[in-house]
Amino acid sequence: MSLVVQKYGGSSVADADAIKRVARRIVDTRMQGHDVVVTVSAMGDTTDELIDLSNAVSGKEHPREMDILLTAGERISMSLLAMAVRDLGVGAQSFTGPQAGVITSGAYGRARIIDVEPGRLRQTLAGGEVAIVAGFQGLNQETQDIQTLGRGGSDTTAVALAAALNADVCEIYTDVDGVFSADPRIVPSARKLNSITYEEMLDMAASGAKVLMPRCVEYARRFNVPIHVRSSFSGLEGTWVKDATEGEVMEEPIIAGVAHDRSEAKITVIGIPDVPGSAARLFEAVASSGANIDMIVQNVSATRTGVTDISFTLPVAAVPEASAAIEADQELIGYTDLVTDDTIGKVSLIGAGMRSSSGVSAKFFAALRDAGINIEMISTSDIRISVVTRAEKLDDAVRAVHTAFGLDSSQGEAVVYGGSGR
Amino acid sequence: MSLVVQKYGGSSVADADAIKRVARRIVDTRMQGHDVVVTVSAMGDTTDELIDLSNAVSGKEHPREMDILLTAGERISMSLLAMAVRDLGVGAQSFTGPQAGVITSGAYGRARIIDVEPGRLRQTLAGGEVAIVAGFQGLNQETQDIQTLGRGGSDTTAVALAAALNADVCEIYTDVDGVFSADPRIVPSARKLNSITYEEMLDMAASGAKVLMPRCVEYARRFNVPIHVRSSFSGLEGTWVKDATEGEVMEEPIIAGVAHDRSEAKITVIGIPDVPGSAARLFEAVASSGANIDMIVQNVSATRTGVTDISFTLPVAAVPEASAAIEADQELIGYTDLVTDDTIGKVSLIGAGMRSSSGVSAKFFAALRDAGINIEMISTSDIRISVVTRAEKLDDAVRAVHTAFGLDSSQGEAVVYGGSGR
Repeated sequence: MSLVVQKYGGSSVADADAIKRVARRIVDTRMQGHDVVVTVSAMGDTTDELIDLSNAVSGKEHPREMDILLTAGERISMSLLAMAVRDLGVGAQSFTGPQAGVITSGAYGRARIIDVEPGRLRQTLAGGEVAIVAGFQGLNQETQDIQTLGRGGSDTTAVALAAALNADVCEIYTDVDGVFSADPRIVPSARKLNSITYEEMLDMAASGAKVLMPRCVEYARRFNVPIHVRSSFSGLEGTWVKDATEGEVMEEPIIAGVAHDRSEAKITVIGIPDVPGSAARLFEAVASSGANIDMIVQNVSATRTGVTDISFTLPVAAVPEASAAIEADQELIGYTDLVTDDTIGKVSLIGAGMRSSSGVSAKFFAALRDAGINIEMISTSDIRISVVTRAEKLDDAVRAVHTAFGLDSSQGEAVVYGGSGR
Repeated sequence: MSLVVQKYGGSSVADADAIKRVARRIVDTRMQGHDVVVTVSAMGDTTDELIDLSNAVSGKEHPREMDILLTAGERISMSLLAMAVRDLGVGAQSFTGPQAGVITSGAYGRARIIDVEPGRLRQTLAGGEVAIVAGFQGLNQETQDIQTLGRGGSDTTAVALAAALNADVCEIYTDVDGVFSADPRIVPSARKLNSITYEEMLDMAASGAKVLMPRCVEYARRFNVPIHVRSSFSGLEGTWVKDATEGEVMEEPIIAGVAHDRSEAKITVIGIPDVPGSAARLFEAVASSGANIDMIVQNVSATRTGVTDISFTLPVAAVPEASAAIEADQELIGYTDLVTDDTIGKVSLIGAGMRSSSGVSAKFFAALRDAGINIEMISTSDIRISVVTRAEKLDDAVRAVHTAFGLDSSQGEAVVYGGSGR
């Protein structure tokens, strides 16, 4: 018998029938003899509806009250799910984040979990019942108020509960069959990965793969919680996210997959004096706007001497405020022009194996060249290569790289071992 | 400066505009220099929608989960109302029943308030802010679970908070202008009462007046909390429910008003042996079905000797189970026939003054006789006379009694003093 934490997102509990389907899956797991703790998101569009309601009432920001409002969504889904499980003859109780012992800190709307005190959940499991916990929320002990966790909060709740309960696995149910070597909507021959390491998954997520949020993977890595990403519809084995065991390391594939991201824009600041402190002043201005920066590239200016151009990428939504902040400091930074460009795409190749393989970069750039794709920016880590291309070339870039590294499912083995030199 | 507790029902916060209207009224009260605590119900049809959802998911009863589900409704209305108040420049925070220190006991779905620990509310008031509290709910300290209070729970929450905070007044906002001498839909000339005593209001409520629930009035009487029932639309002075002061007692009107009730049915059990213990056996059977009984009348049988007939009234909804329970015990009780009748109405005349006046009953029965209305059952307390009539004669009965006691607004004084003998 093992302890299983399951997480179901909003689309898995969108209506009464979906809730009953999820209940059946929970009961099946319990019937197999496992202890089961479930984290659930709000039903389908509930959160959006509550946001619409708040907009109808108030045009201003009320973070504390907004969190109270939004947590009504999980309250509804969790109690309904508990009812559906009980209808199938298995005891179940639902708990809010505070009741489940999820302790948070930080700002309303984007709090982080700082501790889990799962006494009540353990008691529920000891009584043979299923514990159903509201995702996305916890108690701030200082204020004794409920807080929401922001994007990816429900996945993180599941992982945090799994860590606190020392669960054998954290199953994240979603509407796809697992983590793929590329987005199947772009690369029809993309294949489901059987497993992927935490750091690869982190880079995949940070590079645009949407199946898991980076914060959830980071939490799992820190506490070594095995995640099983799988479909709530098919019931098939999905993708395991975990550290490679000793034996597996030897056969570690070079490449896990290709991720892409079209949510970023590029800002180029032209003619910055090429003296110490220029970049610092520029990025202090950007930071003051609250924008999170992804890639940064600095080039010697092609047209003038003694000056340099700096390009960086950031979320499209952050461009107006970041631009305004830079323009406000134009004199201090000393640049001549600022150009924004929101028609870019980013393609990333991720694989822990590239650390020990040579020739990966060369093959990557060759694939893009052969496909006629121009590279605008390059950034690398020890397990990732990312490049910025024109947005309209992004799909071609993803396919070209996917094929070049033998990831297409028609190309043979499900996992590519060995390397062709980096 | 005084401390005011205000209660707004679901129809007062039915949509975004209604919430903003209520917020304006709260802010007006605060601007007059009063400390303000608000209790709010779920928006309009929210509770019914949540019940529909639960019926779509489950056909069974899950009391704990049902209470968790339903309390999502107040969570939504209270946070939206706090936002709307803050938008008007007045600080406000919303609190769940548990956060507000409302402690409950008893069964899910119909818990009762056993204590209020209003530390957090006091703190909020001390900070110059308005505290907005979810009605209808509290924390069961034994189970650490939320519970709902059942019918009239939001009014009771308001009165309980007012008692715990030693408030100067508990204002119950509703969609009528106050307590009337009769239902204005039946008696167009009915008039709004300026004040009514707790015991009169209790009898009015128990006799079918829907503006306040008996449990709320009972709580107010016990802790001597003055209630002001008023319209959330008109802003006019409403009806005060409170003990008469010394000076007022001298001028106490005989009659407060006429109440009616068409929610009851009558069960007549015929041919019960006229020996000790028969009635006990009958009502033990009824009690086992969970039915609450109102009036009971026992007559010697008109047709047989040594046997008696017993009639009693109970809510229409309770008839099937009560009948079944009686029929199951037919041999034990020894009756011959059971007749149920759900086409009855009850008209009641209420007034603390009738205690010291004679002739009230005579005048009451004469009024019904003159209107050609047959009386089927009679029950009296020291401040109330109730009779059962045919349902279709009920409106006529209410009007006849209302006129006979000079309560019609065209008949002169707003309050009738003195008596014409009981």
